[in-house]
Amino acid sequence: MVEIGGVTAQLAEIVGADQVLVGEAIADDYTHDEALSVAAQVPAAVVRPGTAAEVSAVLRVAAAQGMPVTPRGTGTGLSGASIPRPGGLVVSFERMNRILEIDTENHVAVVQPGVTLAQLDEATAEVGLMYPVYPGESGASLGGNVATNAGGMRAVRYGVTRTQVLGLEAVLPSGEVIRTGGKLTKASTGYDLTQLIIGSEGTLALVTEATLRLYPRAPHQATVLAPFGSVDEVARAVPKVVATGVGPLVLEYIDAFTMAAITHAQELDLGIPAEIKDSTQAYLLVMLESRAADRLDGDVAEVATQLSELGAVDVYVLPGPAARRLVEAREKRFWTAKAMGANDIVDVVVPRAAIPEFLAMAKEVAERHQSFVAGCGHAGDGNVHLSVFQADPEVRYRLLRELYEAGIKLGGLISGEHGVGQTKKRYFLELTDPTTLALMRRIKQAFDPTGILNPGVLLD
Amino acid sequence: MVEIGGVTAQLAEIVGADQVLVGEAIADDYTHDEALSVAAQVPAAVVRPGTAAEVSAVLRVAAAQGMPVTPRGTGTGLSGASIPRPGGLVVSFERMNRILEIDTENHVAVVQPGVTLAQLDEATAEVGLMYPVYPGESGASLGGNVATNAGGMRAVRYGVTRTQVLGLEAVLPSGEVIRTGGKLTKASTGYDLTQLIIGSEGTLALVTEATLRLYPRAPHQATVLAPFGSVDEVARAVPKVVATGVGPLVLEYIDAFTMAAITHAQELDLGIPAEIKDSTQAYLLVMLESRAADRLDGDVAEVATQLSELGAVDVYVLPGPAARRLVEAREKRFWTAKAMGANDIVDVVVPRAAIPEFLAMAKEVAERHQSFVAGCGHAGDGNVHLSVFQADPEVRYRLLRELYEAGIKLGGLISGEHGVGQTKKRYFLELTDPTTLALMRRIKQAFDPTGILNPGVLLD
Repeated sequence: MVEIGGVTAQLAEIVGADQVLVGEAIADDYTHDEALSVAAQVPAAVVRPGTAAEVSAVLRVAAAQGMPVTPRGTGTGLSGASIPRPGGLVVSFERMNRILEIDTENHVAVVQPGVTLAQLDEATAEVGLMYPVYPGESGASLGGNVATNAGGMRAVRYGVTRTQVLGLEAVLPSGEVIRTGGKLTKASTGYDLTQLIIGSEGTLALVTEATLRLYPRAPHQATVLAPFGSVDEVARAVPKVVATGVGPLVLEYIDAFTMAAITHAQELDLGIPAEIKDSTQAYLLVMLESRAADRLDGDVAEVATQLSELGAVDVYVLPGPAARRLVEAREKRFWTAKAMGANDIVDVVVPRAAIPEFLAMAKEVAERHQSFVAGCGHAGDGNVHLSVFQADPEVRYRLLRELYEAGIKLGGLISGEHGVGQTKKRYFLELTDPTTLALMRRIKQAFDPTGILNPGVLLD
Repeated sequence: MVEIGGVTAQLAEIVGADQVLVGEAIADDYTHDEALSVAAQVPAAVVRPGTAAEVSAVLRVAAAQGMPVTPRGTGTGLSGASIPRPGGLVVSFERMNRILEIDTENHVAVVQPGVTLAQLDEATAEVGLMYPVYPGESGASLGGNVATNAGGMRAVRYGVTRTQVLGLEAVLPSGEVIRTGGKLTKASTGYDLTQLIIGSEGTLALVTEATLRLYPRAPHQATVLAPFGSVDEVARAVPKVVATGVGPLVLEYIDAFTMAAITHAQELDLGIPAEIKDSTQAYLLVMLESRAADRLDGDVAEVATQLSELGAVDVYVLPGPAARRLVEAREKRFWTAKAMGANDIVDVVVPRAAIPEFLAMAKEVAERHQSFVAGCGHAGDGNVHLSVFQADPEVRYRLLRELYEAGIKLGGLISGEHGVGQTKKRYFLELTDPTTLALMRRIKQAFDPTGILNPGVLLD
């Protein structure tokens, strides 16, 4: 074992020698996440704790050495928040991957941070419950979801990760362990540390356990796909669909370019005639769920009629297999974009009624910079995903900065669900008002006075 | 105008002389909220700002003088968080009572902190929308609701205040104004200051504007009332009702003593035969809502059958007027308890399946201290409201401390929705782990280094 100033031995004493990796033993996976624009970095060591007590002891060692600590779930993040620092330590939660409890009386799950969404979905299905957050990557870990406040397609009905996390166990950089919240949907007992840690991208504390809200699993689902002549019409249809009270499970728009790309990549033929495709600028995808088949049929008929009246070129009720494959293709959009050579991705969030204006501004900005952007988004939530094609980093910086400024001008934020991480930090620091940044820095200081937790991410 | 070290004149310059009250001009209302166990206190001055800029200027004056500042909405709080400090300043938001916007495209309302729930309900009804938080006091202000993270009866379906607040404008004790969030249901762009300020009881910042989520207003409601032989049976029925997926709007239990008291106080006869009442220990109140009358009928029939099978002594579908009066009586429970001479009230929250165990422990504790407790609660949320009858403050302290310890032992928290305020501060400080308290104090310090905001509330 390679020695790094005696640290390796100390870590090995805590977690066992085979759970500390250094030098050649560090697999490539530990050097990056899925961010497109941040270079991989080999850390000084990777440590794989098995318990909160071990995490605590590891953090005490890191604090004593002033060693940067980067937490890691399954590495599916898109913003570089899991890419280590030079000379730093990766704390990988891969061994803390147990579902500790599925509580059917209180409708909660208690999980370790390394549990994946797929794993939780399987376990909850067995008892007729489900965890609703669906960010399109079922290999993502719950710890990572908590760190980025993951959203996804079903947020329009069930809310984001923030809505589901009822309590945490977390280790402070000092090694102190705190417990927040509980199996409780109401609380008014001091500052909500649960909510503060959610979305903090591993910069405040390391989450070692999460208590999550579960819901009854609705047995019936249906999917409606409506091509529209313009994104404007799609955006205008969204509040109307929501106002009916049908409570859509998914409400997504997909632009014509992206629909062509993802269906091509997945070899999926939805049977839409060429002349319809030709007059389509954007598709609205509506998924509905219900506990009763007849109610679902009623809801589908109502939405289909409504979309026709709102100007859809046509309305398709997709059969189960086609619907599943389309959602799958939509989930894999990132990989399609990556394969096509996208240089970066954007997940700006704006008030949902501002989507058309934002997209128009984005198109104008891209054209001015001789770049190309295309995408899709969570239309019900105003969360726009764009792939950005522009190889020159300087041009891309100006383009992205203008895109983010456009979103902020419309009342939005830089990131709706991927997080700031390393990829958007420059923009975040440049575009956030200094008073707010200073307050966030004081909060960071309150948790992490020596700044060992995920330095380089979010704040400087 | 009485002078207080030159402060009155400075304040008058900011808000106008008629918006600064001192001495005899301070109405009794400003000296207290509705807490049963905290004495009223006359402040040095009351100031009534009209804008965030005025709030900012007022806080700069207070900070320069080191003058304690107590924010005040409509004074309906139950924990003493709006009771001023000796020599302190009350900042009353009564003039900042405008609904700035009802946005039907994005389904949000933007309100000033002095807007009441009744006012917002009326304005949203006009456009077929509604704000779901329903804490049983429609005269409460939204600013106060944000400060305590108000919950109430409908939280089981729609969540608490925390779920609905999408953004804030808030003034820091330094006078700096920040804006957080926006008309956005997704965000992953830095620490969530919105969520941190919610529930902080006016100790971190003064909220001057809130952006709130609205929902389609369901046109049909029905109410089912089921008497049960024991609280145990009621609590066991709750997860079963939730698991159906009917999504109850209200899921309350009311113990037999409390039902007798509130129906008597409101002169309400529900037509329940004496022999049923005699064999009833607790009632389960289920309200359902739907966008379609036939679906509502189906849901009511399903729940009624289910409750019968789960051991209800009988099941009543209450006609509209009776249902409204019962909910009204339940809302006025606090006033009934006060009129009956209750010495304090408790709003412990526990995992909902732990309600029977908590109530059994509460009964045992009360009997051991020769005291009496009775109540009702949000059964779907595990939020238990008890009136405590024990006039001796020392005995009551021991009784309450044991009650809170029992709740915490079951995985709960001291307050589910009223807040810690002044009434529960001693218990909060004694029963919260020191690491968590120290972290909360550092967070307080990050916002309010000189400690002028609501001192004496929550933390010392």
